[in-house]
Amino acid sequence: MEIINYTDEHHEYRQRFRSFLETDILPHKNQWDNAQLIPKDIWKKLGKNGFLCPTVEKAYGGAGQDFLYSVIVIEEIARANYLGLFAYLHSEVVVPYITAYATEAQKMAYLPGCVVGDIITAVAMTEPDAGSDLASMVTTAVEQDDHIIINGSKTFISNGVNCDLIVLAARDPQEKNPHKAISLFLVEADTPGLKKGVQFEKMGMHSQDTTELFFNNCKIPVSGRLGPKGAGFKLLMNKLQQERLVCAVSAVACSEFCLEWTVNYFRQALADKSHLARSQASQFALAEMVTELKMEKAFVNGLVLSHMAGENVILETSMAKFSTTDSAKRISSRCMDLLEEMGGIEGNCPLVDAFNDVRVLSIYAGTNEIMKQIIAKELLSSSKSLC
Amino acid sequence: MEIINYTDEHHEYRQRFRSFLETDILPHKNQWDNAQLIPKDIWKKLGKNGFLCPTVEKAYGGAGQDFLYSVIVIEEIARANYLGLFAYLHSEVVVPYITAYATEAQKMAYLPGCVVGDIITAVAMTEPDAGSDLASMVTTAVEQDDHIIINGSKTFISNGVNCDLIVLAARDPQEKNPHKAISLFLVEADTPGLKKGVQFEKMGMHSQDTTELFFNNCKIPVSGRLGPKGAGFKLLMNKLQQERLVCAVSAVACSEFCLEWTVNYFRQALADKSHLARSQASQFALAEMVTELKMEKAFVNGLVLSHMAGENVILETSMAKFSTTDSAKRISSRCMDLLEEMGGIEGNCPLVDAFNDVRVLSIYAGTNEIMKQIIAKELLSSSKSLC
Amino acid sequence: MEIINYTDEHHEYRQRFRSFLETDILPHKNQWDNAQLIPKDIWKKLGKNGFLCPTVEKAYGGAGQDFLYSVIVIEEIARANYLGLFAYLHSEVVVPYITAYATEAQKMAYLPGCVVGDIITAVAMTEPDAGSDLASMVTTAVEQDDHIIINGSKTFISNGVNCDLIVLAARDPQEKNPHKAISLFLVEADTPGLKKGVQFEKMGMHSQDTTELFFNNCKIPVSGRLGPKGAGFKLLMNKLQQERLVCAVSAVACSEFCLEWTVNYFRQALADKSHLARSQASQFALAEMVTELKMEKAFVNGLVLSHMAGENVILETSMAKFSTTDSAKRISSRCMDLLEEMGGIEGNCPLVDAFNDVRVLSIYAGTNEIMKQIIAKELLSSSKSLC
Amino acid sequence: MEIINYTDEHHEYRQRFRSFLETDILPHKNQWDNAQLIPKDIWKKLGKNGFLCPTVEKAYGGAGQDFLYSVIVIEEIARANYLGLFAYLHSEVVVPYITAYATEAQKMAYLPGCVVGDIITAVAMTEPDAGSDLASMVTTAVEQDDHIIINGSKTFISNGVNCDLIVLAARDPQEKNPHKAISLFLVEADTPGLKKGVQFEKMGMHSQDTTELFFNNCKIPVSGRLGPKGAGFKLLMNKLQQERLVCAVSAVACSEFCLEWTVNYFRQALADKSHLARSQASQFALAEMVTELKMEKAFVNGLVLSHMAGENVILETSMAKFSTTDSAKRISSRCMDLLEEMGGIEGNCPLVDAFNDVRVLSIYAGTNEIMKQIIAKELLSSSKSLC
Ligand SMILES: Cc1cc2nc3c(=O)[nH]c(=O)nc-3n(C[C@H](O)[C@H](O)[C@H](O)COP(=O)(O)OP(=O)(O)OC[C@H]3O[C@@H](n4cnc5c(N)ncnc54)[C@H](O)[C@@H]3O)c2cc1C
Ligand SMILES: Cc1cc2nc3c(=O)[nH]c(=O)nc-3n(C[C@H](O)[C@H](O)[C@H](O)COP(=O)(O)OP(=O)(O)OC[C@H]3O[C@@H](n4cnc5c(N)ncnc54)[C@H](O)[C@@H]3O)c2cc1C
Ligand SMILES: Cc1cc2nc3c(=O)[nH]c(=O)nc-3n(C[C@H](O)[C@H](O)[C@H](O)COP(=O)(O)OP(=O)(O)OC[C@H]3O[C@@H](n4cnc5c(N)ncnc54)[C@H](O)[C@@H]3O)c2cc1C
Ligand SMILES: Cc1cc2nc3c(=O)[nH]c(=O)nc-3n(C[C@H](O)[C@H](O)[C@H](O)COP(=O)(O)OP(=O)(O)OC[C@H]3O[C@@H](n4cnc5c(N)ncnc54)[C@H](O)[C@@H]3O)c2cc1C
Repeated sequence: MEIINYTDEHHEYRQRFRSFLETDILPHKNQWDNAQLIPKDIWKKLGKNGFLCPTVEKAYGGAGQDFLYSVIVIEEIARANYLGLFAYLHSEVVVPYITAYATEAQKMAYLPGCVVGDIITAVAMTEPDAGSDLASMVTTAVEQDDHIIINGSKTFISNGVNCDLIVLAARDPQEKNPHKAISLFLVEADTPGLKKGVQFEKMGMHSQDTTELFFNNCKIPVSGRLGPKGAGFKLLMNKLQQERLVCAVSAVACSEFCLEWTVNYFRQALADKSHLARSQASQFALAEMVTELKMEKAFVNGLVLSHMAGENVILETSMAKFSTTDSAKRISSRCMDLLEEMGGIEGNCPLVDAFNDVRVLSIYAGTNEIMKQIIAKELLSSSKSLC
Repeated sequence: MEIINYTDEHHEYRQRFRSFLETDILPHKNQWDNAQLIPKDIWKKLGKNGFLCPTVEKAYGGAGQDFLYSVIVIEEIARANYLGLFAYLHSEVVVPYITAYATEAQKMAYLPGCVVGDIITAVAMTEPDAGSDLASMVTTAVEQDDHIIINGSKTFISNGVNCDLIVLAARDPQEKNPHKAISLFLVEADTPGLKKGVQFEKMGMHSQDTTELFFNNCKIPVSGRLGPKGAGFKLLMNKLQQERLVCAVSAVACSEFCLEWTVNYFRQALADKSHLARSQASQFALAEMVTELKMEKAFVNGLVLSHMAGENVILETSMAKFSTTDSAKRISSRCMDLLEEMGGIEGNCPLVDAFNDVRVLSIYAGTNEIMKQIIAKELLSSSKSLC
Repeated sequence: MEIINYTDEHHEYRQRFRSFLETDILPHKNQWDNAQLIPKDIWKKLGKNGFLCPTVEKAYGGAGQDFLYSVIVIEEIARANYLGLFAYLHSEVVVPYITAYATEAQKMAYLPGCVVGDIITAVAMTEPDAGSDLASMVTTAVEQDDHIIINGSKTFISNGVNCDLIVLAARDPQEKNPHKAISLFLVEADTPGLKKGVQFEKMGMHSQDTTELFFNNCKIPVSGRLGPKGAGFKLLMNKLQQERLVCAVSAVACSEFCLEWTVNYFRQALADKSHLARSQASQFALAEMVTELKMEKAFVNGLVLSHMAGENVILETSMAKFSTTDSAKRISSRCMDLLEEMGGIEGNCPLVDAFNDVRVLSIYAGTNEIMKQIIAKELLSSSKSLC
Repeated sequence: MEIINYTDEHHEYRQRFRSFLETDILPHKNQWDNAQLIPKDIWKKLGKNGFLCPTVEKAYGGAGQDFLYSVIVIEEIARANYLGLFAYLHSEVVVPYITAYATEAQKMAYLPGCVVGDIITAVAMTEPDAGSDLASMVTTAVEQDDHIIINGSKTFISNGVNCDLIVLAARDPQEKNPHKAISLFLVEADTPGLKKGVQFEKMGMHSQDTTELFFNNCKIPVSGRLGPKGAGFKLLMNKLQQERLVCAVSAVACSEFCLEWTVNYFRQALADKSHLARSQASQFALAEMVTELKMEKAFVNGLVLSHMAGENVILETSMAKFSTTDSAKRISSRCMDLLEEMGGIEGNCPLVDAFNDVRVLSIYAGTNEIMKQIIAKELLSSSKSLC
């Protein structure tokens, strides 16, 4: 009894994307990891083949698919062990701000480009002193005539180098209450006054470009505001459910990759009559990990359906986010333990990449500590029964 | 989005059983724990009210309900923190042998009594030297004319004192191959030659009677065989999926009880401005445990549906069995840790009982080690993908 | 290379105490557990044989031994699996207040009785609303002429029923600053105005009597003050190092008991060719637990020497306290897991007692949460290197 | 009370080595990591300054120091976060074979060069199909006239590229019993018929060269045998105690580095009033890790003394080996978790290196699984008490 019932069209899409990854993407992974960047024309290829923003409506150039298409893309990237191809940030995190909050004109201007990969997007909230605590952001956006002048800087911005369009959060310096001060803006990357910083050397997800952004009297038209003035904080919060859910989907698929690879290695070892596979301790470790994975998957799949049904599952999504990302760290590490010397030799063992890639999953979209705080607060402040 | 969609009838049944527990059962728990026995007329009361064997067909005196009624009974017993009321062994483990394998005559003879609680059943497989390894059982059943003569002994038999009818596994001493030697028998408890031993002093589930059974030239009619001759091993295996699934349902509900109680204690503490509830470490511990619980519940609920749909989910059930019972141990213990001194004072803290009761859940119906062996073997011997 | 070098006299003392436990104590354990009290004449027998307060100076009737004699008594009680014989509270926690802070007259009056077991002592700090946070205690001690009038109540007092003499902490209601308000007093148990409450039903350590104390205009002579007026808080803090160290010694010895018993059970199982002992997963679990134990023991033994050398090792003692008591919980539980069905049958398996007894070790003398707070504060507020 | 009492000379040596690391080594780490090799003249510099083989006797050019000098070198390398400077393999693992088993002539020929760094050594036991199970090695050494002809291959050989002299284990193909068949040999790296393979791409310890060795009718003089003929297996086993002990010393020091760095980061964060350091959950995590470290250190320090006293502590060393290396993995990972986004940015966070380097510690010198097997076997086959 599968919790999610994929249709034939879904299965076919998955197959198509899987082939695409094998032929057009994976052969270049090493090169792009070294370059710390995925070439722009690859984004276009992804777009042309329908692998960006599958849920965008047809009116804006999209395919108008259901959210399961998004899930499929995220899962297949993780199962291909290439988290550095961080396309879902664009498709499922940033573009949804536009589909949900943009004016018709903004949608017409940007969405078609987003779908075909001509426009790569980024979202810029975090600042050197405002990470978990977004309310303390200091980047300012001041309205002046028909322009908005932006000053400040943002950091840890994914797609920071590649991006053409930025969903930016900034505050009105006149308004003290952060819940009223913050607005969102659509800033094109070539706007004068916006400078991209140097890339961070991350320990994993090497192909994915992460950088700082500097705004120095950066001037955008007043039509660049996204959503109502002062509503930024609320808009950001509204999008977190999906943002965290896609992290969980990715984390589960990444654990799946690690376990699949390791189980296959053990199957081979068993065929080869090697010691490795005969150890009961190792076998039990595999049994425990696969069980953990299956439970997470059941939970996350249930959440996907709830999310698609429009339910408020922010509490459950916070649970999924911290638990699956923690688990991915643990599983990738323990699989490598089981493989022993094989697990430490990069050339032969793809788990080394997974092991390093998964670590950021528990940071962005809210750290695991923040997730637990949300959960505990919700649990203790309500009077609802758990069951 | 609930994985299981209970109907109004289900909800009503749950309410009715919950009330029954509160008025007719829980006030006597201490007394029955001390006596290490639940009085026979309580079984009759359970039966009369429809709380035994809900799935037995109407033709045999049952209500012909679906398996969710069984799930409801198991859950409510655990949430009432009274695992010692081990009624589900009778209803969901032993009686199913009769409904599945008995002749029409056997069904007519026993099922109506099972449903109303006049007949309490037990299943006797385990022997002093045959626990996990049932194949090594030595109790013999020898056909002689129109009788079967049974010799040997069984141990750890739940309902051992109260039982009126026993599903017994015994071997043909002539046949060496255990997969052909073992047959099942229906033995009435007052058959001459059958003696019940003394009760075990268990660390938990005190109300539940567990004992030894001794067979000394115990003679039953040949019509007492249950199922085909020599098919015993296979019949036992066939029933394990449900047996393990009900353990998992019980374990999850028991964790639910512990967490519900603890969360409520913290809510009160927060209202009282006590230190306890303000500790972040404790709050995070709660968040982690509730998350673990929710994942297990999603998985087990999915399994319940698969089981009802007649799918073979023996692998997944093994996962559920070890994982949820381990988790119940861990959760009951960690909740008590959080409560500190409150957690050690029996009079005030019901978790002490839960903490002691849950320990046997990981033993019967196959130890957790056996579960992991099944899982590992299945994983490594197949070539199926995990996802 | 042993960290502690016991002399022949130490070894002999250990042997003598071990025999004493076997002949005079253990045969009565069940009875005293049920009575929730150890008879007073057993205390006298302990005293007469030199097993109480071994370090008290000869001048006051003691043997003037070194602290290793105390360690031996604590270890042997735990290895006899009888934490309910909580003699070390008297010998190593309460009496040291007298030896350290009492006047010559007070010492002469009480110490000889403490040594021979005529006087059983208790320490009463905790109140319903003052546990971890002693500063918030509200029991008052008011000086009036040559008397002190005590009002209030204390709770969770070990030896609460048996005690003849109480070291009591109470505050001067005139003084707001808790660091100046609290004084200690020696209160004889038969003083009018002092009433002992009912005993708590604890989940473990059943023989040990824990109760409430009520002071209602309880009048003691002014000579009953212990130590300088207003110094109570500091005096209490001073004694915590030894108090926590003896908890750690006890916890380690209790883990030793559990592992010793389990390893022997496995040795026997191996001789019997049972499945149990052949499981690699179980063998590895044993290896891991014994290793954990050996590390803790090395650390605690080092601390014992430091403590005897008069060093300030309050930080290390806090580490030992939380870690060894957590470990004892974990080890007793995991050993029972390994034993499976054997581990749940009280009559046969002494680990059930250990499992229940150890839980309080992490509560008194400062909860584990308080320990971690002390450690973290110390680590983060100093600038010392860790190595 | 320190378990090891270092003298002033020891402290001075430590200071001297620490300065040397800072000035002569660490500035080049990146370069050598990229080259996957430490230049030979650095080995000479280490030698000239007395940092290689400190315990070799003066007669052979050494300083004749005690083993604590070795411990100091190992600790300081780990605390400098440069496990890739794997000098202790040469000094404390390979050279001891020569000091213990070599003839006077062999000692005179090789030891002085080992001490000054002119001769870099390696030990070659492992083969593609003989890792944990050394008995199954197939490389042959056949005596012919006054020569020995070697054929076969070895793998995972540390210092494989740099080495000038190899302690090689090979078997007599005529002798079936592995305990009699294996002998050790001293093979100079430039012997014809010996070829070094390509380097492995390891996930950590990048500067350390690990490679394969191929022997093709490689001919050495009969005087190249090390120790008695056929005694190889026993000689290898004899050296394992020290080999595993130095791994444990290294692992503990590496954990120390990670915690020291993280605690300092938190101290700074506290001074900066950042959120990070105020989280109780993080503070408790630090407290737990430092406690774990202190216990391991106490245990390992005790072992160092026992080892120096010539005791057989192979059981305890196996405990130390698996536990400290597991712990180093766990601590490096959990510290990075605590640092969150800081922990994933390589340029800023040295823990990334530690995290990747420590993983091999649990593999060489016997995997942790092999360690646990040794411990379990020893525990269960003896009848000794644990305490
Ligand atoms: C690879 C990567 C990509 C990213 N991409 C983007 C992006 O595209 N756009 C973007 O805007 N941001 C991005 N981020 C930033 C990310 O969202 C932040 O790093 C994250 O929200 C944490 O903020 P911080 O780093 O400032 O940590 P802080 O908020 O300073 O937190 C530091 C630590 O303190 C803890 N903490 C914080 N508050 C509390 C509290 N109240 N109580 C207890 N503990 C607390 C945190 O859990 C954490 O451990 C990215 C980060 C990474 C690493
Ligand atoms: C409270 C209670 C009620 C029970 N009720 C019933 C009942 O009503 N009817 C009934 O027939 N039985 C009943 N049992 C028995 C129960 O099913 C058995 O205890 C269980 O199957 C384990 O068998 P055993 O006790 O003989 O342990 P063993 O089979 O002897 O196992 C001992 C240990 O060895 C491990 N082990 C066994 N085989 C292997 C292997 N191949 N590899 C690795 N490890 C292995 C096990 O996991 C376990 O840890 C009950 C038990 C309890 C505790
Ligand atoms: C068997 C037993 C015997 C005892 N014997 C004695 C005795 O002989 N004499 C005596 O005086 N007392 C005795 N005690 C009392 C014992 O010392 C206290 O129970 C203990 O100090 C904890 O205090 P509390 O129970 O009031 O818990 P609280 O202080 O109310 O703490 C409740 C919980 O909150 C946590 N907490 C408290 N403060 C903080 C904080 N600042 N931050 C985060 N978390 C916090 C605690 O860790 C705990 O989990 C005994 C207790 C027991 C259980
Ligand atoms: C970085 C590095 C440096 C090294 N340097 C050297 C060197 O200088 N010289 C040298 O000779 N070797 C060296 N080695 C080799 C190392 O000693 C071996 O890798 C190690 O002994 C394990 O052997 P293996 O890799 O063949 O694994 P295997 O022995 O094949 O083991 C594979 C897995 O099976 C498990 N296993 C093995 N036997 C059993 C059993 N009986 N029961 C249960 N489980 C079992 C192991 O724990 C492991 O998980 C090095 C290795 C590494 C990674």
